[in-house]
Amino acid sequence: MRDLSPLFSPRSIAVVGASSNLMGLAGRPIAYLSESNLDIAVYPVNPTRDEIGGYQVYPDPASLPEAPDVGLVVVPAAAVVEAIEALAKRGTKAAVVISSGFGEGDRAEGIDAQVRMRDIAREHGMLLLGPNTLGVHDYVRGLPLSFVWYGRKSRTDEGSVAVVSQSGSGMTSLCDRMLDAGIPLGYGVATGNEADVTIVDILEHLAEDPKVKVIATVFEEIREGERFLKVCQRLRDLGKPLIAMKVGRTESGSAMVKSHTGALAGSYPTLRALMRQYGVLEVTDLDQIPGMVAVAALGKLPTSNSIAVVTNSGGAAAISADRADELGVVLAELSPSTQVKVKENLPPFAQDQPVHNPIDVTAQSMQKRFALVDIVEALVDDEGVGAVIHAVPSSGGPEGGQWVQKYCGLSHSADKPIVGVILSGRESDHLRNALRDGGVPILSSPGQAVEAIALLHRFAAAPTSADISAARQATSAKSIPLPQVVTEYSTLNWLAEYGIPVATQRMASTVSEAVAVADEIGYPVAVKISSPDIAHKTEVGGVALSLTTADEVAEATTRVLANAASAAPRAVLEGVTISRMVKPALELISGIHKDDTFGHVILLGLGGIWAEILGDVTMRGLPLGPDAARRMVDDLQGAPLLRGARGRTPVKMESLARVIDALARIIDEHGDSISGLDLNPVAVTEDGELVVLDASLFISNE
Amino acid sequence: MRDLSPLFSPRSIAVVGASSNLMGLAGRPIAYLSESNLDIAVYPVNPTRDEIGGYQVYPDPASLPEAPDVGLVVVPAAAVVEAIEALAKRGTKAAVVISSGFGEGDRAEGIDAQVRMRDIAREHGMLLLGPNTLGVHDYVRGLPLSFVWYGRKSRTDEGSVAVVSQSGSGMTSLCDRMLDAGIPLGYGVATGNEADVTIVDILEHLAEDPKVKVIATVFEEIREGERFLKVCQRLRDLGKPLIAMKVGRTESGSAMVKSHTGALAGSYPTLRALMRQYGVLEVTDLDQIPGMVAVAALGKLPTSNSIAVVTNSGGAAAISADRADELGVVLAELSPSTQVKVKENLPPFAQDQPVHNPIDVTAQSMQKRFALVDIVEALVDDEGVGAVIHAVPSSGGPEGGQWVQKYCGLSHSADKPIVGVILSGRESDHLRNALRDGGVPILSSPGQAVEAIALLHRFAAAPTSADISAARQATSAKSIPLPQVVTEYSTLNWLAEYGIPVATQRMASTVSEAVAVADEIGYPVAVKISSPDIAHKTEVGGVALSLTTADEVAEATTRVLANAASAAPRAVLEGVTISRMVKPALELISGIHKDDTFGHVILLGLGGIWAEILGDVTMRGLPLGPDAARRMVDDLQGAPLLRGARGRTPVKMESLARVIDALARIIDEHGDSISGLDLNPVAVTEDGELVVLDASLFISNE
Repeated sequence: MRDLSPLFSPRSIAVVGASSNLMGLAGRPIAYLSESNLDIAVYPVNPTRDEIGGYQVYPDPASLPEAPDVGLVVVPAAAVVEAIEALAKRGTKAAVVISSGFGEGDRAEGIDAQVRMRDIAREHGMLLLGPNTLGVHDYVRGLPLSFVWYGRKSRTDEGSVAVVSQSGSGMTSLCDRMLDAGIPLGYGVATGNEADVTIVDILEHLAEDPKVKVIATVFEEIREGERFLKVCQRLRDLGKPLIAMKVGRTESGSAMVKSHTGALAGSYPTLRALMRQYGVLEVTDLDQIPGMVAVAALGKLPTSNSIAVVTNSGGAAAISADRADELGVVLAELSPSTQVKVKENLPPFAQDQPVHNPIDVTAQSMQKRFALVDIVEALVDDEGVGAVIHAVPSSGGPEGGQWVQKYCGLSHSADKPIVGVILSGRESDHLRNALRDGGVPILSSPGQAVEAIALLHRFAAAPTSADISAARQATSAKSIPLPQVVTEYSTLNWLAEYGIPVATQRMASTVSEAVAVADEIGYPVAVKISSPDIAHKTEVGGVALSLTTADEVAEATTRVLANAASAAPRAVLEGVTISRMVKPALELISGIHKDDTFGHVILLGLGGIWAEILGDVTMRGLPLGPDAARRMVDDLQGAPLLRGARGRTPVKMESLARVIDALARIIDEHGDSISGLDLNPVAVTEDGELVVLDASLFISNE
Repeated sequence: MRDLSPLFSPRSIAVVGASSNLMGLAGRPIAYLSESNLDIAVYPVNPTRDEIGGYQVYPDPASLPEAPDVGLVVVPAAAVVEAIEALAKRGTKAAVVISSGFGEGDRAEGIDAQVRMRDIAREHGMLLLGPNTLGVHDYVRGLPLSFVWYGRKSRTDEGSVAVVSQSGSGMTSLCDRMLDAGIPLGYGVATGNEADVTIVDILEHLAEDPKVKVIATVFEEIREGERFLKVCQRLRDLGKPLIAMKVGRTESGSAMVKSHTGALAGSYPTLRALMRQYGVLEVTDLDQIPGMVAVAALGKLPTSNSIAVVTNSGGAAAISADRADELGVVLAELSPSTQVKVKENLPPFAQDQPVHNPIDVTAQSMQKRFALVDIVEALVDDEGVGAVIHAVPSSGGPEGGQWVQKYCGLSHSADKPIVGVILSGRESDHLRNALRDGGVPILSSPGQAVEAIALLHRFAAAPTSADISAARQATSAKSIPLPQVVTEYSTLNWLAEYGIPVATQRMASTVSEAVAVADEIGYPVAVKISSPDIAHKTEVGGVALSLTTADEVAEATTRVLANAASAAPRAVLEGVTISRMVKPALELISGIHKDDTFGHVILLGLGGIWAEILGDVTMRGLPLGPDAARRMVDDLQGAPLLRGARGRTPVKMESLARVIDALARIIDEHGDSISGLDLNPVAVTEDGELVVLDASLFISNE
């Protein structure tokens, strides 16, 4: 891990290109540093001035009285490389390059300059943030290494929330909204073009900062896939939720990202599946983030996927229930003793009915002093409840102050999240602020509260490193060599050696042999040409399906061999394979995919049009955690089909797990040599077993 | 349409049960009316007081000096019926029953009382809003018929936005947020338990109020399906968007609704499809509504589904592009002349490149005085652009005031929506408010802006009554009588008379006849038992599929007849049907469904597991608009399959339209007699034609 402390705790800052116009882009950093009133040495660098904003000015970095922790670069693009070189030579620990006009455009000179500044920085061991960065905001100390700063500080000096984004506007926009929502914000960092320091570097640093408990990130591109996943795992191990929004998910979005950052768009479906694997809380809109962060900043994880909801609005109760159903969150069944405690606080007419969850206390409960908070307490005490959502009435009840105090105390002592929702607007700001000051997250919509719990529970359920180590099976088995000659036949046999169930198949080199084999394995059979030189057998007329008699097999074998010889005269023909046809109850696809960013991943999805049209596939990177096969199924939209919806036989999970584990072993043993492996289709038989019917192995050309 | 004007423009209000504790539930209405300072007669009714809040008190409704426009009822539940009766007898025009404890509980006495108060009101021609209602808020005049009121008025007296909700908290919550967002709110109405006046009554009234331009509604249950659809059509004809959120979409959510309102949960999939048909802007979270309303309140509809986006943040540009792709919104290709005008306002380095949409002007454009607003103007002038989204920089540029003025002027004169997005937080409130005051909708997220345009365009694209009349084909064809005896055979023949393509099939009553028929229509064939008494043919062993020879047909016919005779000894056996088997390239389902709330609707969906697991079906009510078949396809998740994705033959739209139109004609001619019609499966052949393979007709028992 790189030591980024100079960026986060600088004791001396040189501003290279500082202007005496303190309102302009190149003057504002000096003004901000001056206003921050911190015990930090500030050195404006400008060859034409003596004094700026009350600070002594130096003509160049070489003349600085000390090697500064940070060199903030605000010179025009053409002068940046020179400034970087001078800072590096002076021993500066970190440069923050605000200036733009580099990798974010299409111009070769800008891209070249970006490479040069990186090379210089690395040669001298100087960190480089940017170029085209908005810099680093410290909202606790009120210290901006930036040219955009509104002077807003965090409401407390907790600083438990950090924001990191490639885009400057993404960073400031998120930070502003979090400050508006009273979130204990610590740092905001924009990494800009990432010539050197990347979002992953920042995440690694923040993960180890004991003050930071929650990180929100908006990013356009992750360049270091493996390190990103490692830091995701580290954050999971530390119990620090990472809330992430990927910009450029779609074709148009990623084209936009590419045109404005020059970054290569990776595969979003892979990223999405891997974030899910590691428990990253993915959102797709900026507006979702502050609420999600507020809940995560509680520092408490849901103890289960079951929630309890209490409201004095039937509408809010139903909205919560809708969202829970939509997100697969369970409305907990309350224990008998909880029901008794809840009833004590419900109006008389509710006494002879069972307590429903969500609990709608109706307006009448508001007459009882602490009814709502007592109900919340009963729910927190119920072991079957993993988190509590409470639609707080717009006034705190007859005893506002005491009510707030009791409620905040309860939230503080609970071992699970209590999330408040206030439906009303600004007229409830007083109550809203009082509760937020007391550490209770207050959202504006019951739906968002359920969503936050759902994602936070997914984080809690993601395996820790310890879980993964415990689940890993030491295999003493010897590595199985790759097939010498790659055909469907050899690939299926090779997969069988890994314990993957494959269709019964035999090779035959003559018509009579083919008939004998077919008679032996039983009809119906398929006859397919086998040649390492023919990848697309159907296209050369090399496949005959559903053959039910010896005559048909004889005829088909003759035809297939002739077709292949005529369509691919130079191909080496091994003969034909005869395989027993299986009528699948359901078709899956699986295999290994090599992603540009994240390397080899295991793929599982519904087959046929589900894969084609819905893209209903999921992925897992290595190492696999416990229960990987079941978790992969959970990711799929078509999961009910695999679980046995509508009278189907469910897929046998141990059978699926065997396939997934074998694929992991193949990546371990042969990752360097293979660029892909398609198992397509994988039939699910009537009794829920898996059989791979066809497979293609792709050997890496590197 | 009912005359609801007494509820919206009362000149005299009696408060029955008024208390002298002006802070309590029964006293607050008096306090609010007093504070409103309007020229309205207020009559507290209370047998034990002489004066409340400065008003003369009357002992009972009978003694009131005039028949009041409104009687606001705040007495305890047990006294409500009596109060209603007294008000009705005094000639009161409308009662607003705040009191609760009626249909919203499970208690029979509450439900009875609700029926009684409705009967009394109707008998006397008195309107009744509630019980369990929060009442009516007039945010322009500052007049609440309510017990919850924060004294907030709308920022203008435009009053072009109205809110109606069954839930009181839904109404106030939405209204509060709209006031926070500076939306020109007029009325907020809660209908509570709807003993008499329903949400549909309110919608009908608001539709005809010339001041009202946009309506937002949150509802748990629509009870009058047909009238609801009529008012949706009326709102479309008037160009007044209806933004709607249904609470209780899921099983848990609708159980909650049922338990707290006693309403029967209708079929959400039907409602959703019908709202789509009529262009209703459906949202699923409260937080989506204010932004959507702000855009709709512009009173301008997108002129196409193509948008242009301009931002000075690459991130915001990419977020917009993502959302556009996800919602099927097109990023317009800018005309050459627009590109020239845009470039005049871009920095030098952008001059030698084509102009991308979204346009990322980068921070540098901010140096030019009116660059951004000039770009927006160029985009508005481009005929290929249906709406413009503009991420407004957090300050208005070097000339704030003039900039705002020019921008607002442009927004005012444009013939299409211009939607502003401000990414920053409270520090931009000054700019945000200035733009809102100037009539520009300002949202907080580019994704929401795209969403608002997408839904508003769907509203614009929904057919008007005139479109529907123009599209309706006068049919001179005589009605085709229902089959005398309902079997698959007779149903398919009957459908064929309507011009619906059905599988070739013939009846045979003997084995030799069956073989002769099979020989004639060609193999493979299916043999199925035909009997009006056997609905589930497979279950009695009455179906044999994929028969390829005369021998197989003979054997199957014998077997099927024997199976049916033994399994259903009393059934009348007509014989067997022989039908030509068709191998579908794709399977659809279609037919007629009778919804409890909305009556007969036409259904179309993907067949098999798509229907089962994804529920990928859509519905249309009558009358059908133009292009109904294509629009139904657009609704489906699997639409790409029907449009020919991945080398498939697209479904012939004229063939699908023939089926949909025939189903509409069947509803017209036989709606009263049939409770359902399933066409399942409908095969799509290799050449894109439709063939109904099986059909079940359900005759209504009423």
